[in-house]
Amino acid sequence: MTTVGILGGGQLARMLALSGAPLGLRFRVLDTVADACAGQFAPLIVGDYRDEAALAEFAAQVDVATFDFENVPAESARWLSERVPVFPNPRALSIAQDRLAEKTLFRELGIPVPAFADVADRAALDAAVAVIGTPCILKTRRLGYDGKGQFRIKSPADVDAAWDALGAQAATVGLILEAFVRFERELSVVAVRGRDGEFRAWPLTENWHVDGVLSVSLAPARVDADLAAQADAHARALAEALDYVGVFALELFCRDGVLLANELAPRVHNSGHWTIEGSETSQFQNHLRAVLGLPLGDTRMLGHACMLNWIGHLPDAEPVLREPGGHWHDYGKEPRAGRKVGHATLRADSPAELAAAMARVGRALGRDDIVAHAAGID
Amino acid sequence: MTTVGILGGGQLARMLALSGAPLGLRFRVLDTVADACAGQFAPLIVGDYRDEAALAEFAAQVDVATFDFENVPAESARWLSERVPVFPNPRALSIAQDRLAEKTLFRELGIPVPAFADVADRAALDAAVAVIGTPCILKTRRLGYDGKGQFRIKSPADVDAAWDALGAQAATVGLILEAFVRFERELSVVAVRGRDGEFRAWPLTENWHVDGVLSVSLAPARVDADLAAQADAHARALAEALDYVGVFALELFCRDGVLLANELAPRVHNSGHWTIEGSETSQFQNHLRAVLGLPLGDTRMLGHACMLNWIGHLPDAEPVLREPGGHWHDYGKEPRAGRKVGHATLRADSPAELAAAMARVGRALGRDDIVAHAAGID
Repeated sequence: MTTVGILGGGQLARMLALSGAPLGLRFRVLDTVADACAGQFAPLIVGDYRDEAALAEFAAQVDVATFDFENVPAESARWLSERVPVFPNPRALSIAQDRLAEKTLFRELGIPVPAFADVADRAALDAAVAVIGTPCILKTRRLGYDGKGQFRIKSPADVDAAWDALGAQAATVGLILEAFVRFERELSVVAVRGRDGEFRAWPLTENWHVDGVLSVSLAPARVDADLAAQADAHARALAEALDYVGVFALELFCRDGVLLANELAPRVHNSGHWTIEGSETSQFQNHLRAVLGLPLGDTRMLGHACMLNWIGHLPDAEPVLREPGGHWHDYGKEPRAGRKVGHATLRADSPAELAAAMARVGRALGRDDIVAHAAGID
Repeated sequence: MTTVGILGGGQLARMLALSGAPLGLRFRVLDTVADACAGQFAPLIVGDYRDEAALAEFAAQVDVATFDFENVPAESARWLSERVPVFPNPRALSIAQDRLAEKTLFRELGIPVPAFADVADRAALDAAVAVIGTPCILKTRRLGYDGKGQFRIKSPADVDAAWDALGAQAATVGLILEAFVRFERELSVVAVRGRDGEFRAWPLTENWHVDGVLSVSLAPARVDADLAAQADAHARALAEALDYVGVFALELFCRDGVLLANELAPRVHNSGHWTIEGSETSQFQNHLRAVLGLPLGDTRMLGHACMLNWIGHLPDAEPVLREPGGHWHDYGKEPRAGRKVGHATLRADSPAELAAAMARVGRALGRDDIVAHAAGID
């Protein structure tokens, strides 16, 4: 009997536990709050990630540990990794936690990135804006998530306001200035690498964000095969450089037909939720297979899929459940503004059937706009 | 927040809970043993099904109740149904618990059945054997499961031994004599009926038993469309007659191209496990949708599927996990002779690919014989 420990008890941990049950796995989840939604289906330990007593209790109960979110303190991950195997490894986690280290690695690996610069102080910010130009975005190096900890500088006149908003964090989590990319598409490679180095990617996914939060994903992305192969090659290079084990997502912008790396998410990813019904093997199952050293599952698609994210509160499930390829995912969370509370996946055998299902659901749930973009009917 | 209660905490309850989590459901499971495997993923109440205190505790915690096995005492189901909605209804359950009532209903509905007779005493047995002929099978009317409580009468000389083995039960659970059917195929319709009367069946499944226990299922069954339509019509007639709500299986024999009803299983069914990966909607999710009055999901297949049952102990998972369409299901149970401890599903886009995968797995796990039959390579 193998027990998998998960640091973080949100919807990703919940879906990992549900997906891992058929492998005969048991789970222990460590989260800071007692109502973490993974706790509905897996035993939950409540404690701070820096609390050694909680970590020790957790470590004593698990055979291997992984993460449901990337902001687990790197020291906690390292402390744990001295006691139980931890995948992905703490170095990969710590690089993914730091936008500057991450983008520097992208560049070293020959993966194109938007212009960026370290911002140690106000003078560095001025210098960076002069080089990179506007529009650009000032971001915290660490602890940013879904558009939080960011300030968009539309013109040099905004630099003061940006510094007022984030400057104090230059000395704590650090700051980075990034060029603002006017992209045509946002894409993500969701991929998995096994303990033995085997690498598999799911078909490239196209994403649409609203207010910095993922709203819709479509797979496979409507891009040519060369671009998709390039995205896979970038993801593979990254995984190998980090000796990464498990599932991760590489978020990319596509501008003028060129891919630019945006960020690495060192965990199962929102843009891979469609794999539960839309692929032979879900990202959740393959993450666990990787972490346990089991053979990886096939990442091929079963038809075409669209994922709609539910933010803040759940809409009526009926229009989704009435679709032949409609699948509902309620994370069992209390509604709260900005919170990811669920998603729906629409699966179909052809792009035309999928677009029709998307249009029906979009209409029924008042999401016509975003769905129209994704369905290519705009 | 809706809590679904399940009487019985085995693998069926476990898979119901795993499948219902994405619908935002919570679960409570009542079982007689503390290590019931559903308890690994859903809160478990330990108690006897006839214990009113345990039933009352269970009833107080759930919004609706259902079953993971059919031998829950009908009085317990009725007691519960006065407190919370219970699906399927206790009458359907009690008919399915009684082979005589079940077969009488089949006959009333015009569903062909093998010859059978009520056996109230030894004289009735002699008379029934004279009419039905040998070979035939003496069975208990109630509480039989996977070939238990049965005695095969190969010739009139076996009647004494049959009566010695089971005669004492004529006065308790009752006995029935059934003609022994030399069938060419064993088939099952796994179907679902909603609260609103909507009926959907998955593609007909072909089954192979070993020592009375399901060993392999293949879907869709290799039969002509007329026969499959007839099987569906029988299942629909039965569901309507019982005002059945939820998933059930109708087990059928096929002899000389004619279908004969064998038995009704008033629950999700072992021969429907392939629906988890092989159908747009699994039997587990559709059972819950039915019980909750939600729209039923599509029962179409995604390709072709084969389910291999693991009895007693789990074999090595690797040969299954290495298959592109290989899916593993470990129920988290201790090994024990005769116990269903897990299953594997192989899914493929074509019958030829499926047969090749079955042959590889059969070879690797020493199950060549049974797999060869199912793959049609005998």
